[in-house]
Amino acid sequence: MNAPLKTIATEAATDFVRRHIGPSPRDIAAMLETTGAKSLAELMGQTLPSSIRQKAPLDLGRALSETEALSHMRQLAAQNQVFTSLIGTGYSGTILPAVIQRNILENPAWYTAYTPYQPEISQGRLEALFNFQTMICDLTGLDIANASLLDEATAAAEAMALAERHSQVKAKAFFVDKEVHPQTLAVMRTRAEPLGWTLVVGDPLTDLDKTDVLGALLQYPGTSGAVRDLRPAIASLRAKGALAIVAADLLALTLLSSPGELGADIAIGSAQRFGVPMGYGGPHAAYMAVRDALKRSLPGRIVGLSVDSRGAPAYRLALQTREQHIRREKATSNICTAQVLLAVIASMYAVYHGPEGLTHIARSVHRRASVLAAGLAKLGHAPKSQDFFDTITVDAGPKRDAIVARALTERINLRIGENVLGIAVDETTTPEVIEAVWRAFGGKLAYADVELSARDALPGELKRTSAFLTHPVFHAHRSETELLRYMRKLSDRDLALDRAMIPLGSCTMKLNATSEMIPLTWPEFSNLHPFAPPEQAKGYHALFARLEQWLCDITGYDAISLQPNSGAQGEYAGLLAIRGYHAARGEPHRKVCLIPSSAHGTNPASASMVGMDVVVVACDIRGDVDVNDLRAKADQHANDLAAIMITYPSTHGVFEEHISEICDIVHGHGGQVYLDGANMNAQVGLSRPGDYGADVSHLNLHKTFCIPHGGGGPGMGPIGVKAHLAPYLPGHPATNGAVPHPVGPVSAAPFGSASILTISYIYILMMGGEGLTRATELAILNANYIATKLDPHFPVLYKNAKGRVAHECIVDPRALKISSGVTVDDIAKRLIDYGFHAPTMSFPVPGTLMIEPTESESKAELDRFCDAMIAIRNEIAEIEKGRWKVEASPLRHAPHTVHDIADDSWQRAYSRVEGCFPAGSARTDKYWCPVGRVDNVYGDRNLVCSCPPITDYAQAAE
Amino acid sequence: MNAPLKTIATEAATDFVRRHIGPSPRDIAAMLETTGAKSLAELMGQTLPSSIRQKAPLDLGRALSETEALSHMRQLAAQNQVFTSLIGTGYSGTILPAVIQRNILENPAWYTAYTPYQPEISQGRLEALFNFQTMICDLTGLDIANASLLDEATAAAEAMALAERHSQVKAKAFFVDKEVHPQTLAVMRTRAEPLGWTLVVGDPLTDLDKTDVLGALLQYPGTSGAVRDLRPAIASLRAKGALAIVAADLLALTLLSSPGELGADIAIGSAQRFGVPMGYGGPHAAYMAVRDALKRSLPGRIVGLSVDSRGAPAYRLALQTREQHIRREKATSNICTAQVLLAVIASMYAVYHGPEGLTHIARSVHRRASVLAAGLAKLGHAPKSQDFFDTITVDAGPKRDAIVARALTERINLRIGENVLGIAVDETTTPEVIEAVWRAFGGKLAYADVELSARDALPGELKRTSAFLTHPVFHAHRSETELLRYMRKLSDRDLALDRAMIPLGSCTMKLNATSEMIPLTWPEFSNLHPFAPPEQAKGYHALFARLEQWLCDITGYDAISLQPNSGAQGEYAGLLAIRGYHAARGEPHRKVCLIPSSAHGTNPASASMVGMDVVVVACDIRGDVDVNDLRAKADQHANDLAAIMITYPSTHGVFEEHISEICDIVHGHGGQVYLDGANMNAQVGLSRPGDYGADVSHLNLHKTFCIPHGGGGPGMGPIGVKAHLAPYLPGHPATNGAVPHPVGPVSAAPFGSASILTISYIYILMMGGEGLTRATELAILNANYIATKLDPHFPVLYKNAKGRVAHECIVDPRALKISSGVTVDDIAKRLIDYGFHAPTMSFPVPGTLMIEPTESESKAELDRFCDAMIAIRNEIAEIEKGRWKVEASPLRHAPHTVHDIADDSWQRAYSRVEGCFPAGSARTDKYWCPVGRVDNVYGDRNLVCSCPPITDYAQAAE
Repeated sequence: MNAPLKTIATEAATDFVRRHIGPSPRDIAAMLETTGAKSLAELMGQTLPSSIRQKAPLDLGRALSETEALSHMRQLAAQNQVFTSLIGTGYSGTILPAVIQRNILENPAWYTAYTPYQPEISQGRLEALFNFQTMICDLTGLDIANASLLDEATAAAEAMALAERHSQVKAKAFFVDKEVHPQTLAVMRTRAEPLGWTLVVGDPLTDLDKTDVLGALLQYPGTSGAVRDLRPAIASLRAKGALAIVAADLLALTLLSSPGELGADIAIGSAQRFGVPMGYGGPHAAYMAVRDALKRSLPGRIVGLSVDSRGAPAYRLALQTREQHIRREKATSNICTAQVLLAVIASMYAVYHGPEGLTHIARSVHRRASVLAAGLAKLGHAPKSQDFFDTITVDAGPKRDAIVARALTERINLRIGENVLGIAVDETTTPEVIEAVWRAFGGKLAYADVELSARDALPGELKRTSAFLTHPVFHAHRSETELLRYMRKLSDRDLALDRAMIPLGSCTMKLNATSEMIPLTWPEFSNLHPFAPPEQAKGYHALFARLEQWLCDITGYDAISLQPNSGAQGEYAGLLAIRGYHAARGEPHRKVCLIPSSAHGTNPASASMVGMDVVVVACDIRGDVDVNDLRAKADQHANDLAAIMITYPSTHGVFEEHISEICDIVHGHGGQVYLDGANMNAQVGLSRPGDYGADVSHLNLHKTFCIPHGGGGPGMGPIGVKAHLAPYLPGHPATNGAVPHPVGPVSAAPFGSASILTISYIYILMMGGEGLTRATELAILNANYIATKLDPHFPVLYKNAKGRVAHECIVDPRALKISSGVTVDDIAKRLIDYGFHAPTMSFPVPGTLMIEPTESESKAELDRFCDAMIAIRNEIAEIEKGRWKVEASPLRHAPHTVHDIADDSWQRAYSRVEGCFPAGSARTDKYWCPVGRVDNVYGDRNLVCSCPPITDYAQAAE
Repeated sequence: MNAPLKTIATEAATDFVRRHIGPSPRDIAAMLETTGAKSLAELMGQTLPSSIRQKAPLDLGRALSETEALSHMRQLAAQNQVFTSLIGTGYSGTILPAVIQRNILENPAWYTAYTPYQPEISQGRLEALFNFQTMICDLTGLDIANASLLDEATAAAEAMALAERHSQVKAKAFFVDKEVHPQTLAVMRTRAEPLGWTLVVGDPLTDLDKTDVLGALLQYPGTSGAVRDLRPAIASLRAKGALAIVAADLLALTLLSSPGELGADIAIGSAQRFGVPMGYGGPHAAYMAVRDALKRSLPGRIVGLSVDSRGAPAYRLALQTREQHIRREKATSNICTAQVLLAVIASMYAVYHGPEGLTHIARSVHRRASVLAAGLAKLGHAPKSQDFFDTITVDAGPKRDAIVARALTERINLRIGENVLGIAVDETTTPEVIEAVWRAFGGKLAYADVELSARDALPGELKRTSAFLTHPVFHAHRSETELLRYMRKLSDRDLALDRAMIPLGSCTMKLNATSEMIPLTWPEFSNLHPFAPPEQAKGYHALFARLEQWLCDITGYDAISLQPNSGAQGEYAGLLAIRGYHAARGEPHRKVCLIPSSAHGTNPASASMVGMDVVVVACDIRGDVDVNDLRAKADQHANDLAAIMITYPSTHGVFEEHISEICDIVHGHGGQVYLDGANMNAQVGLSRPGDYGADVSHLNLHKTFCIPHGGGGPGMGPIGVKAHLAPYLPGHPATNGAVPHPVGPVSAAPFGSASILTISYIYILMMGGEGLTRATELAILNANYIATKLDPHFPVLYKNAKGRVAHECIVDPRALKISSGVTVDDIAKRLIDYGFHAPTMSFPVPGTLMIEPTESESKAELDRFCDAMIAIRNEIAEIEKGRWKVEASPLRHAPHTVHDIADDSWQRAYSRVEGCFPAGSARTDKYWCPVGRVDNVYGDRNLVCSCPPITDYAQAAE
């Protein structure tokens, strides 16, 4: 832990807690009156079981004002040292164009958006993601790409799992190129082991035929920098019916034949170097592209082109029913969160540079690397591979440490191998840096002199000849003005938190305060390589230590791992810890995982991925876990019981009374309790999972701790564990060194998406324990206020015995469907006409809506939302009364667009004003969604996931 | 000058020049073909007289990439040292809320907007400015306020001029309180002297009756910090019919009786401490408020509430026909630019804090000051005034310098007076700082101890009891979420450069690149007090020196003053230099200023302000200066000729052939040539005023050198002069010290709005001489491209002998008014339906439109604009053909709003689609202006310039 923060003046008038929380003290009094509670304390007493209430108030030290907190962050930043990292290994220096940084990464219209499940209000970011997919398809030469995965290492593991399902080779062995990045190999090992798959590491050009493998991952260029002709290896794999996966560097692909052209089935990799800062590990967007035959198994989110109610083109998330949505306990992936904000940045980088700009950057990088190599050759350190793109590896022998030390005095980090050194050049590498590297190797050479003797080191037979990024979008935005307007246009098509409440159940769309977002883009946080020496990252490590301590204090756990990159990955890591614990105690057979029927689909998917067998526990009529059924199942599986996975408060939005009993039953049968922390924001300061029986939880920092949703990522899912599980938290080769660790890494970087931890850190810093507790209380008040107001119109499905909901509530319009034909979809789409994003639809209960207002919404906004819902109920009543048939009602035609209102031959059963400006909705400042209701079935039947060739556009224009 | 910039790699692929310039090389070729020029060189040859062409290419050193330039700016920033400045004197530390910084100051939707002359597309910033006016009226207790002036000192001078016109006392003497800030007094002296007004400085409570004065300026609290009851002085002034002006601190007014309550006629001051960083002098918004009787003489821009075509409330600039617009050579003010962006920030600061928040801040500041005073009293340095708000002055005697030196070791700046020291506390002052001040005075005291003995130092009889900021807008945005959405909503109502071309003539709405905007908000640039010791501002001074050198190289002048805060102020400073020069040569009688009839209204207004007599020179049919008339006038006034003021290229958008001859004639008659640099962007790199005969020019940095318009300010108008005028550049007491300077200051701060000079500096840095020249060529190509395309539809009014325009062109629809009744207003408003801001209307030629495309607009956007203009011409043809009467045409009903299209009883002579989505205009991404055409006459007749009382809202809601 750091020394205590320096005490300076508190700007009480600008107290951050007041700014974070929506309702004013006067509003709170009015809202309590509505809910019938005398005080917040009384309401909390009615909401949470007293048995689990936290004894002492949460004490995290004094809350800091925004000014103080930013000043503290400056001090932390100053403890990080930004050296020039030539370490490579999948992370490169890159230039994020300022216009993209300011207008996407630092713009709430982009970063506060939600996952584009409601396509009508998400056309802007869907187009940006479609561009991303087009870019990936073009560069990899494959047919279909997803819109990002968490990092290259997990993408490799996902590809392996995909190969396992599709390979014609039935062996449970998988080949990994020795030229694969070490962290990729480590994550694949973690992933393969519980499933009983063997990894064979070797040289694909010589070792492939020695083993029977279901597929292989090849790196291109290799981690050493070598560029090899992989065609023979790929051909040999495919001849046997095994799958060939290529991990490829996108920038290199502008100059090298694509994986598709080489014959690969799948390509994966990172889009980090397309403008996304290294951030000491992340977040970055990884990619995966596959041949057409594999498209329906492609994990992650895919944007497809469909049509709207008028037949106009409209983007949407395609194939949403794949993977854990339908497979649950048979899933081979629990992927949920993507890296949308980072994928958008990478796609804009490509839009801005275009094919010729990217090629120019690649050529410059290659030129620099070639000059570097030529100079090192003069100094007696010729590169080990004649063919390379941006990275070279040289023999250093006994001089290695001296060279590294001299490089450090030049503020340069090299990659250190056994007797070898690696040096990776990137877009930011200047001639001065290359001269400094030569000095580290003991030579005084001038760049300009050496340049004359440098040679092109790309093998002629692999030079790219095929075109890419031919679509007009990659050609029309070369000036900053044009790009700025394009980004503005796209963001205006979307509805994000900067315009209206996003009342999603369980997704906690609360304020992402500006001050929380500021340190993120400081170079001291954004420009550190994840494998830079830790002594250059003292600020980061101080931040990690304090954040871990805070999260322990908040949850009652004893240890935290910051590594998991998403909530689902946190689940996976938590189950690995349980698995490791049982194994270490000689009970590796404990493999049964109990999961209540109300669970989120990622729960069984995660259990499946660690080799556990899912046993479903029933819920009672109240939505709570059926304790009798639980006891019966626990008895039945007592010898093999590994764990229960339970969400608390439940996905039904209620604090179940029996949580302690549930934990006791599981423990009594030798199992561990995995408490899904998705709803931790209903507990912070009021109750601690570690106190009432849970052994491990993940924490969605992007929900509870204010990391913005970014339009569908990044997320962060650190896990907390009790002391007995601490040895089984994920390790990492970069931090463990030679010490073997019982559980391998789950992410490419040791601290996951380290740079965005700054957001949660400063949030906690500015809230303090008291402020965080207040936020929890207000989240619960806001939810109960909405429940109270809506209940007469849309019954609230689940409440506790005292009639209270937790931080969210499910409203139930199923009876209205019977009486009027109005579906939950109709209500959701109609809300768009009122200027709102829909609540969560049909989760966890089909046909219902789940609403989570969060503490940051003001009473005025909650009232506006409730008024809209009640107005919709009145519209439904009109259908019930027979004024409209449902097919002809404004509900079914929702959302209404300018194309509707502009229709001079309007023939509807309701007026334009009734359709477009329903009761109480804004007219002047109306949000117009760009497309009408999107046709999901059409989109999945006619899958189009990258930009069509230009000829189609030319035809359309005619 | 600095040492040469370190040479590092050029990112040619991200070359800034290519990003700044809109058209691609391919577009340029196509555009040249359209214009009939073979090459850019040929086009330049046809456009500029060969006699004035610059001989050598502009050489400013190698252009830097964005990355290099930002890195260079970091180095400059590191040379500034941010001490805690307790200097006061009208500048205070303040906390700009991060949410306002990111979403206004760093948001192109706000900073790239133009002055709100077109109210329909400016309702957002007009509302923000209306809030500003309401805030000023409430706090000052006066009836009407303008929406900002340049700084407190010029506001004081403006108030003096206003008083001179309205005073019943005919004496030409004006009283200035000895407690006025020294820079205010200095600027008033500059302003008074040419007009023959005497300033009498003294104590208003004792000296007022000694002289007959037309009015008085009193400071409240005084510059020493003293809070005096000014009522007797004000009463005595008013009793004689003299005007009482109070310069008041807005934060103090939350606790003190307002100037209006004290009886003042006028209040002026700075809104800087409401969230606007000091920026080493600016920019900040100054304010002026007056009693109702003076409202029609209030200088500067005033936002008024009017109604639109449907009778709905709509904001607009009120009373636009005052001052230099109608008075020209009789004007007493040349005010033109306001400080809109800064006024918006200050208003949002008040919206966010509300009355109780502002009061809390004021109380905290006062508390700190009281504790400081109590501690100093213990140390034997009791404050000289018992009554104070935030500033105290103490006797220091011979210890003064030692105390100052000790304070510097604590990184604290004090205000140094003769044997006294001033210490001003502000929102950012912490107890630690106060303890450090005590240490500087030789005492070790603990804040907490002294606090117990501190007393309230506000005089009881002046304590404020009246309410302020009672309007709901100051109460509804207390959470960050609510404020964020309010700011987004307002910005969405406006059309700025981030959405579409703004083709204003002579206002040069070109790219304000993101990288140019980044250093501005770094603390090393934004948190320096303008009177901090220069050794703490080495980075700034290096920047000034290099910028001055560059501007000399660009213009051919020998010296630059960066002080003038706007173009009009630059004119004024330039004429002062000419006046000083003549006087020094024993020819003070030279007072005739020749001004062509085509001149901008500020030219004669500026001449009038320096006591010159304006003689108008005729223009010929081509729009050029009539050289014969000029010669005749010069002959006629040969003995008294002071100067000519000429704009080049002319306001008609043409390079006149005779410019050298004109200069020669004026010089031949003993006059000096003031060349208005408003159109310098048509010359940079091609010709230099200093080479072909001009003696002095101002440069609009906010036009030519990329400072964004900010919605109507800030601007910057440095002047360049030939060597013989250099001694007569404006001085400043803060930099001249005891040395008398022939010409006094024109701005409050020695380097004007220093912080935004970073923008122009980095722009030049990234463009280099070659890039700047290229920009000029492209500006001229774009204008000629538009002229060529539009000429067949709307005749281009003025061209040179070779048929070329300069960087802008005037199109003439006057014949169409005769044939169809369509006015220039109709065309301008109809362009809004096509998604464009209108060109400049009726300047310089009534009934015409002036268009300046700038180099940053792409061919695609130019084509979109030309297509819209041609489509409008086709609509006019429909009227000519008799399809529509003009009153019933879409042109007259433009702009169309959602209120129009929603009208279920549409009865117009054209369809909804024809009205709202005319040919070629965007449907999906349409910009909807929030109000219909605004009624100007109604607004001026029914002047409402601040928010009505809440009761009106309550009634409206019923």
